Amino acid sequence: MTENFEEKTLSRETIFSGKIIDVAVDKVRLPDGSVGQRELVFHNGGVGIIAITSDNRILLVKQYRKPLERTILEIPAGKLDREGEEPILTAHRELEEEVGYRCEKMEPYMTFSLSPGFANEMMHLFIAKGLYQVPDPLPRDDDEWLSIHQLTLDEAKQAIATGEICDSKTIIAIMQWEIESMGGSMNGE
Amino acid sequence: MTENFEEKTLSRETIFSGKIIDVAVDKVRLPDGSVGQRELVFHNGGVGIIAITSDNRILLVKQYRKPLERTILEIPAGKLDREGEEPILTAHRELEEEVGYRCEKMEPYMTFSLSPGFANEMMHLFIAKGLYQVPDPLPRDDDEWLSIHQLTLDEAKQAIATGEICDSKTIIAIMQWEIESMGGSMNGE
Repeated sequence: MTENFEEKTLSRETIFSGKIIDVAVDKVRLPDGSVGQRELVFHNGGVGIIAITSDNRILLVKQYRKPLERTILEIPAGKLDREGEEPILTAHRELEEEVGYRCEKMEPYMTFSLSPGFANEMMHLFIAKGLYQVPDPLPRDDDEWLSIHQLTLDEAKQAIATGEICDSKTIIAIMQWEIESMGGSMNGE
Repeated sequence: MTENFEEKTLSRETIFSGKIIDVAVDKVRLPDGSVGQRELVFHNGGVGIIAITSDNRILLVKQYRKPLERTILEIPAGKLDREGEEPILTAHRELEEEVGYRCEKMEPYMTFSLSPGFANEMMHLFIAKGLYQVPDPLPRDDDEWLSIHQLTLDEAKQAIATGEICDSKTIIAIMQWEIESMGGSMNGE
C-alpha cells in the first residue's frame, strides 16, 4: 500500500508542562500540502493488570476519578514513572502497591492507544499469573485513595452494565476473561 | 458502601482552550484533608461505530494519527461537534462521512472513559445494523485523510497482533465481534 497520509510538523508551540501531561499545538503539513493544526497531549503511558484469583475473582480498585467527578471500579493500574521505564516493572509495582499482591508470572497481553486523536498515551495490559498476597506490601502514592474489590466474571459484566466499570482498559480486561472462559483467544492464529 | 473518596475542587486554573481540548489544573481537597493537584483535559467525547457488512467484514478506516506519528486502522469514529450533541446523530454522520454507509438501525453498545486519570472524554460505541452504501455520501472534514478497509474477523485479530489495530475502541469492537461469534454476550444477565 503506497498511501501516505503523514503529517509533518512545521512548528510546535508548547502550552503546558505538567507532572502527568505535557500539552502542545503543532502546525502540520497535510497530505494535500495545506497547513493544519493538531492539539497534542503527551503522557508517559501506563500499565493495567488483569489479576484473577485462584477462586476465580478479578482484583479491582475503587477510586475517585476527578476528570469524571465520580468513583469507579478499575483493574489495578498506574503510570510509568518516567519515559522509557520498563512497563513490566511498573506492572509488578502497581499490583503490589494497589492491591497487595505479587505474582509468579506477569505476561504481556496487549498494548494500545487510548485516545489516538489527541494523546500519545499507550496502555500496556498484563495478565498476572500465580497470584499471592504480600503481608507487608509497598505503600501507595500520597495522593492515592482506593479500596480493593473482588468480582466474579458475572459480577464484573453486571458492573459494566450498570456503568460502575466504565473505562476501556478494564472493559478490555473483562472481555479478555469472557473470551478465555469460552475457550476463545484474541491471538490472530 | 460508605466510602467517600471525593476530591472537591478548591480552585481551577485554566491553561488552554483549544478546538478539540481544554486543559486545566485543579487544586483539590483529598480525603485526608490535605491539598492535591489534578491535571485535567476536557473533551466533548466521541462515537465509534461497529459496522459489519453482510459478507461478514468489519468496516475500518486507515488514517495518520499525529500523537502516535503513525498510520493505524480504526473503526469509523468522530468527535461530538458540541457538548450535548446526541451521540447517535454523530454516529450516523460519521458512518456516512468516513465510509459512505448508512444503516437501518444504530444500536448503543457501550459508553466508556478512555483515560479516566486525566481526561473526561467519553466514547459512545454503537453497532450499525442493516448497512447499505450511499452513492453520494456527506463530504469529510477538511483535515481528514483516510482510506477505507474491510477485514474479516480473523484478519482483524491478526491486525491487532501486528499492532496495525492498536486503539482501545477498535479493540473493544473486535472483541465484541469475537464474543458474539462464539455465542456469548457482555450483557450482565
